[in-house]
Amino acid sequence: MSHRVRFLPGDVVVSAEDGASLLETARRAGYMLRTECGGLGTCRRCKVRLLSGEVFTAGRPNLSAREQEQGFALACVSRVTGDVEVQIPPGSQFTFSREALPAEWSPGEHPGRELKALGLPLEPLAERLRLKVPPPTLQDNSSDFDRLCRALTRRGLPAPFQAGPEALRRLARTLRAHDGEIHVLLHRGAAATLILDLDADEPQPVYGLALDVGTTTLFARLIDLATGEVAAEASDFNAQIPCGADIIHRIVYAGRPGGLDELRKLILEATEALLRRMVKEVGGHPHRVVAAVVAGNATMQHLFLGLDPRTIREEPYVPTVTHFPLLSARDAGLGLHPRAPVLFSPSVASYVGGDITAGLVAAGVHRAEELCLYVDLGTNGEVALGNREWLTACACSAGPAFEGSGVRCGMRALPGAVDQVRSDGRGRLTFRVIGGGSPRGICGSGLIDLLAELRATGRLDARGKFRPEADPERLRRHGRHTELVLASEADTGGAGDLAISEVDLDNLVRTKGAIFAGIMTLLKGVGLEPGAIDRVIIAGGFGRYLDVERAVQIGMLPDLPREHFSYLGNGSLRGAGLALLSQRLRDELEEVARRVTYFELSAWPGYMDEFMAALFLPHTEAALFPSVKPPPSK
Amino acid sequence: MSHRVRFLPGDVVVSAEDGASLLETARRAGYMLRTECGGLGTCRRCKVRLLSGEVFTAGRPNLSAREQEQGFALACVSRVTGDVEVQIPPGSQFTFSREALPAEWSPGEHPGRELKALGLPLEPLAERLRLKVPPPTLQDNSSDFDRLCRALTRRGLPAPFQAGPEALRRLARTLRAHDGEIHVLLHRGAAATLILDLDADEPQPVYGLALDVGTTTLFARLIDLATGEVAAEASDFNAQIPCGADIIHRIVYAGRPGGLDELRKLILEATEALLRRMVKEVGGHPHRVVAAVVAGNATMQHLFLGLDPRTIREEPYVPTVTHFPLLSARDAGLGLHPRAPVLFSPSVASYVGGDITAGLVAAGVHRAEELCLYVDLGTNGEVALGNREWLTACACSAGPAFEGSGVRCGMRALPGAVDQVRSDGRGRLTFRVIGGGSPRGICGSGLIDLLAELRATGRLDARGKFRPEADPERLRRHGRHTELVLASEADTGGAGDLAISEVDLDNLVRTKGAIFAGIMTLLKGVGLEPGAIDRVIIAGGFGRYLDVERAVQIGMLPDLPREHFSYLGNGSLRGAGLALLSQRLRDELEEVARRVTYFELSAWPGYMDEFMAALFLPHTEAALFPSVKPPPSK
Ligand code: FES
Ligand code: FES
Repeated sequence: MSHRVRFLPGDVVVSAEDGASLLETARRAGYMLRTECGGLGTCRRCKVRLLSGEVFTAGRPNLSAREQEQGFALACVSRVTGDVEVQIPPGSQFTFSREALPAEWSPGEHPGRELKALGLPLEPLAERLRLKVPPPTLQDNSSDFDRLCRALTRRGLPAPFQAGPEALRRLARTLRAHDGEIHVLLHRGAAATLILDLDADEPQPVYGLALDVGTTTLFARLIDLATGEVAAEASDFNAQIPCGADIIHRIVYAGRPGGLDELRKLILEATEALLRRMVKEVGGHPHRVVAAVVAGNATMQHLFLGLDPRTIREEPYVPTVTHFPLLSARDAGLGLHPRAPVLFSPSVASYVGGDITAGLVAAGVHRAEELCLYVDLGTNGEVALGNREWLTACACSAGPAFEGSGVRCGMRALPGAVDQVRSDGRGRLTFRVIGGGSPRGICGSGLIDLLAELRATGRLDARGKFRPEADPERLRRHGRHTELVLASEADTGGAGDLAISEVDLDNLVRTKGAIFAGIMTLLKGVGLEPGAIDRVIIAGGFGRYLDVERAVQIGMLPDLPREHFSYLGNGSLRGAGLALLSQRLRDELEEVARRVTYFELSAWPGYMDEFMAALFLPHTEAALFPSVKPPPSK
Repeated sequence: MSHRVRFLPGDVVVSAEDGASLLETARRAGYMLRTECGGLGTCRRCKVRLLSGEVFTAGRPNLSAREQEQGFALACVSRVTGDVEVQIPPGSQFTFSREALPAEWSPGEHPGRELKALGLPLEPLAERLRLKVPPPTLQDNSSDFDRLCRALTRRGLPAPFQAGPEALRRLARTLRAHDGEIHVLLHRGAAATLILDLDADEPQPVYGLALDVGTTTLFARLIDLATGEVAAEASDFNAQIPCGADIIHRIVYAGRPGGLDELRKLILEATEALLRRMVKEVGGHPHRVVAAVVAGNATMQHLFLGLDPRTIREEPYVPTVTHFPLLSARDAGLGLHPRAPVLFSPSVASYVGGDITAGLVAAGVHRAEELCLYVDLGTNGEVALGNREWLTACACSAGPAFEGSGVRCGMRALPGAVDQVRSDGRGRLTFRVIGGGSPRGICGSGLIDLLAELRATGRLDARGKFRPEADPERLRRHGRHTELVLASEADTGGAGDLAISEVDLDNLVRTKGAIFAGIMTLLKGVGLEPGAIDRVIIAGGFGRYLDVERAVQIGMLPDLPREHFSYLGNGSLRGAGLALLSQRLRDELEEVARRVTYFELSAWPGYMDEFMAALFLPHTEAALFPSVKPPPSK
């Protein structure tokens, strides 16, 4: 038996089998719901309203009696049992507006030139070579393949040579099409030079794909393998988001029947779409993309390859693999040239992944004389410390609070998001809204500003709790918690008022505290003080919008001279692009992944103390933040 | 528009598009016609008779006026243009009776024991290993793959290790199913140890496939990779035969639009069928076949892989490749375990293929102290000469006359074939018929007997021409040629009389002459006389039925003490089986293919003289055949 399900807004009608998940049905109808908990029924992000008809929910849904009376339901735990009309509130819909994604590279970025600056030769992961192979004679009647190998040897390529069946199938006719003038597509492997393909056509540029698979976003570039230039770029949100906002929920989702396959399919399709957009831009055939480097955290790489990620969140937190084998695009499921070599940036451990190793290489931390602190402010929050002599890293389990999850008024840096908070002369908070207009929520940089501002204006105590006396008219009770109204319903243009609660503040303080505690743990682990750090490199999603001054004020980043800080951009993507072009950097990437000493914080003695000490604004130990003035006490 | 085509005998009706090839239509209806010329309209083997309706033939068919009057047509050049009834004469139908194929191995044959006798260890191309991988701990939280590699290292396997995505996908759960007790399927490659698969089940035997892809026949074995025992065997005719009886016609066929793909498909499907039969016999899943060695001549190997074979018959006769890369079963198109390594036995040159190198290794020629002559009496006729010090080889272009092609009364060694010819006391020829009953034709060994007998009884002169005076009542004119009636229509049970013509005799003499000339050319090339040969090894299809005495009498094989001769059987299949089991022999196979000095007879000075001298029975130089008495002169 199947039922008629009508969705609003948009008025999309689909039919659903009896017992079908309402979340799944909405997805089929084209609605992406926010599902931070991955459909466990705990995050309440997937709340919808039934306008007519009913749904079945096993157990008690995580909704108030009032919400239930008003017809609200959690889509993820609701099953369709009859015809139904469903209203999807704007707040429950995930905004896949990729136009709103930051452009992660400045047009001037040029991996080929970066290499040159490092004094490294261009040695792409796959290369196209023009070659003349002499014809056979009765005296030299060696096979086509043997003559090809000899020609390659004369060009300085190392034996042995290997070829797949497709290249061999083409060999006889290609050699005879233009008197032995051919183009050979090669990969110089450690053990053999692989002949990936050959053709007799006029040479056209070939490209490599650099891909950063983030928990929240995908960034991709096509790089011309002969020049090292960025030829096209594309980005999108990670299509897996509806299956869970963070890594843990994705892993839970992967453990459901069919869940892993579904997650893999989502990410591959999304990558395919990026690829198609970029290939369209440069013209030609997707088979002209002949190599790829895929960076990303270990979980994303596991999901990308369909590897079971569940052990990543089970003690002792081991992934299936950290140093992935070099795969063909066909084996990796990528729609490039099927024989294109695909390198997965190696990871250090379950929670310090290939995105971090790629970023360290992009930033040159592993070659630096000076002591570098690398902070990736992505969905997770990883920190690395070191230089050419030694490297350490840890994952802070910071959580996506700064990406808008776990904070009720949080949202991504999309139009309508508050990205800057200041106080006017009279101590009143003022907001800057992306795209102007009324504020709909607050994005990561806005939340850091807010925290700093609330503390600086004395509205919060050093523990991040409201001082009721500081701004009494804006404080109110919401359920069991106190919250501060930032903007009333009138100010937000009817989108509901904007408020921040104790729970939200707690989440933010814990997040910043986790990052700082990670930094301190690494420092103490090697017996150093924050003052020893020469450079702080900020990478990752919202790092770009970060106001370093504010981040120091709340005690998230160490209080160092501000000129020590620099912003790398998407280090993972940049590292992937460089690795596409340089064998030396590919080797270094492997080496970095092996060299980094991983601190598993959950098992690290002293980490908990560091964390507790960092749950202050800025810190229990004020001496660590000499530049941060205590707020006026009222 | 489509037409109704009815075939007799069997009364099969199929519909055919207007303009469809009659040969193709018959094939779809399940009739395999003899098509020696591969459908060029020259061999006349595909003659059929129209009982009603008409077909269209462009140009003039190669049929007599009388045949045309009687409604005969050549199926290969006929197109269906209306409803038609077609009678397929028995002589035009190819008998795919695989029961009639020789059993190429004695039940006692045991490659594993052969290895042992050679003092070589069992080192199969792929092996299944039982392994205990310790669980991860917080102290040793290295990845599953790293711990697996360490366990493999402890078992003495050489690093580096590589794994495909399927094995990685299974790793996490397999390790945790039985406390780290797993089975790993491995291939020890030259550059890395490949982890092909893993599982946690109870161990079951795994098999290797040894395959000999002959122009005429396919022979296959499953060999237990842990014991070296032959577990199953199957054989069939090469399903490409309807596309041409010999290599040259296959190559021509491959040059047609879609021809190469069709030939590849035919051979892969036939191999698949053999595999299924054998797997059914041993039980279990085809994925338990985890390695393969494919021997065969260069053209068959090219067709098997879909490589363009046309350059093989164009001067200077070079193949695309002699030393094939190691492929996965998936890449090779074989339905084994998809990651199973598939080794193609390397060839020396276009016409000395992987069947010969495999045979040389099986016979141990490359390790022999004594001088060995290796003669493969297959569809072609290759000869090799040498020992552990040096090796030479050539292809004799003998043609398939002894396999029943190019000789009007020729047929394969099937029931109804004459396989032995003797004279009774009064000089009358007597025949032994396979399976008893009336003779339908003469197979290879019968033809050699016949030639010897006709010469011994003085019916032929030393040039293989009829002596009219010797048996005048049995000689008659047929067209422009004289022929000898061996059995009248009455004797053959109505299947037409059995006769041999001057043209047939000429073909047979040229065939045996080509083989002997090849042997002599190799000998003279290295400055030796036939008497220097210590061992003669006969291999190949009809070698088993060969009467060495008779083969010497007609001057096909050198006149050496008869105890020097031995029969190897299907050397190609045996070599493939041994190579499956021994790394040492795999290395030797490669080495043999590189070491053999190839004599391209068509360009070899002196070969033509040798050939002309060998067109005598037994030879112009009688001193070469001291044991052969001249016939009574009448
Ligand atoms: S409550 Fe439904 S997705 Fe979280
Ligand atoms: S004449 Fe038809 S196949 Fe040879």
